[in-house]
Amino acid sequence: MHFEVTILGSNGAIPAHNRYPTSQFLNYNGQGFLLDCGEGTQLQMSKYNIKRGKLDHIFITHIHGDHFFGLMGILTSFNLNYREHPLHIYGYVGIEEIVRTYFKHAQTVLRYELIFHTVTDDRSRLVFENSAISVESIILKHRIPTTGFLFREKSGPRKILPEKLDQYQIPVQEISKIKMGADFVTADGMSIPNSELTHDPSPPRSYAFCTDTSYTETILDQIRGVDVLYHEATFLHEHRERAAETGHSTTREAATIALKANVGKLIVGHFSARYEDLSELLSECKDVFPDTELAIEGHLFSI
Amino acid sequence: MHFEVTILGSNGAIPAHNRYPTSQFLNYNGQGFLLDCGEGTQLQMSKYNIKRGKLDHIFITHIHGDHFFGLMGILTSFNLNYREHPLHIYGYVGIEEIVRTYFKHAQTVLRYELIFHTVTDDRSRLVFENSAISVESIILKHRIPTTGFLFREKSGPRKILPEKLDQYQIPVQEISKIKMGADFVTADGMSIPNSELTHDPSPPRSYAFCTDTSYTETILDQIRGVDVLYHEATFLHEHRERAAETGHSTTREAATIALKANVGKLIVGHFSARYEDLSELLSECKDVFPDTELAIEGHLFSI
Repeated sequence: MHFEVTILGSNGAIPAHNRYPTSQFLNYNGQGFLLDCGEGTQLQMSKYNIKRGKLDHIFITHIHGDHFFGLMGILTSFNLNYREHPLHIYGYVGIEEIVRTYFKHAQTVLRYELIFHTVTDDRSRLVFENSAISVESIILKHRIPTTGFLFREKSGPRKILPEKLDQYQIPVQEISKIKMGADFVTADGMSIPNSELTHDPSPPRSYAFCTDTSYTETILDQIRGVDVLYHEATFLHEHRERAAETGHSTTREAATIALKANVGKLIVGHFSARYEDLSELLSECKDVFPDTELAIEGHLFSI
Repeated sequence: MHFEVTILGSNGAIPAHNRYPTSQFLNYNGQGFLLDCGEGTQLQMSKYNIKRGKLDHIFITHIHGDHFFGLMGILTSFNLNYREHPLHIYGYVGIEEIVRTYFKHAQTVLRYELIFHTVTDDRSRLVFENSAISVESIILKHRIPTTGFLFREKSGPRKILPEKLDQYQIPVQEISKIKMGADFVTADGMSIPNSELTHDPSPPRSYAFCTDTSYTETILDQIRGVDVLYHEATFLHEHRERAAETGHSTTREAATIALKANVGKLIVGHFSARYEDLSELLSECKDVFPDTELAIEGHLFSI
């Protein structure tokens, strides 16, 4: 099961150094999810050979342009490419009015259905679920209502030990029951306990996407133990006052969240335009939380 | 006097081949004008070292996303960069509602004044004028109301022949009158006719920007004799039916307009995503109008 994230952009609000604003493409076993959609996202998807056709769900953290100015371009391109299946957008209520206002003036009637799912900032909620994964909102602390998103794989079925299939001549039609925990009775009436036939499935994996936000420990319980945490780190520690003023985090703050939440790996991004060289941002994070990486455009992270 | 145009993007509506949608930056003697503003325009401006601070006027031809999805990003970046002087936007009335709807939901109050100048498609009008240039709208023929823009230099003052300044001991305070056509009377009472002191100024230059449009001869009188014509040529001649259906022009149509309007040079752009190699588009234009060039990103055309 693929569960991987491609960084499409990770610059802060003011474009700089040929870096693109925030967007990530999450591929879960061939199903595509877009996390934020800054200006140029569809161009970045083309550049990194990500097929638009696999994308059915777009999550927008908040209504600041560097997180969604690329949305209307994607919606328009879907229409020009004769998309017919529905597209789901998850975000704050204003997004629908912004999108509809444009299409009204462009005199465009979409060929496909656009389904808006409203996110609210009163508490965390389940915003998406299918048989394999769930997505919860994470309430962040920014200048306007903002939510992150937590992708969590569901526990899969138990795994059959291949050698047991032969040993007990297990028929194909019994396999799914055994994967769900059933014992097996052989042709001569012997009951084989499930524990002898199967082993535990892989532990469910999880990815938390947290941008934009000040340092806030209210998210710790929810993201505790995730495999990978993306957390914004807009500023170096020396610019912590600027971070506080603008509702952003420093390197040390992002890494402290990762440490306290005991996550597997930290990815940092949303870099301020003031930093062309990002190495000091990385090293400040690593001082607190060694397993940190920078969200560099085009990098693919396996969860 | 610089009068030059930098191509920032020239792809048609569906992004392809890493080409950006329509935008051009026109520099008239240090004053900046943006012609359309497709997604990624501000990123392209950075790439080609065009300073945002010199930009005070943005012209939008029509409300299709590939011509203005980059507008809100530029407006936002101006705000984040503490712009204080007004910005003028010229285009159809819906643009203001689209822009204001976004800033309302982003809870952003701009630090600078945004002044909208409404363009209409009933007839050509003067939409901008200063002491050096004028801009008229050009009524085009597309699926929704669309106007091109004609930049025309004003006739400058006459040029003084430098050797006459010495020969007749012309005082500095007389020079501006002579440039405006006055004769000069020397200290000993001799009248020197203006024609002996000056020569004609350079002929005024002009640039017409015509996108998106079907073939329409109604524009010929207005653009006749311009130095440079940008005309969209979305399709090859073999796809002329698709051009007609979508309100666009073919190579031969663009070149025929250039020929019939007797322009100095033709630049073609707004290339369909179906063409990765543009050489056949160029050669079809040149068959009709030899002095044609492709609008390639980063190219600078002097008018």
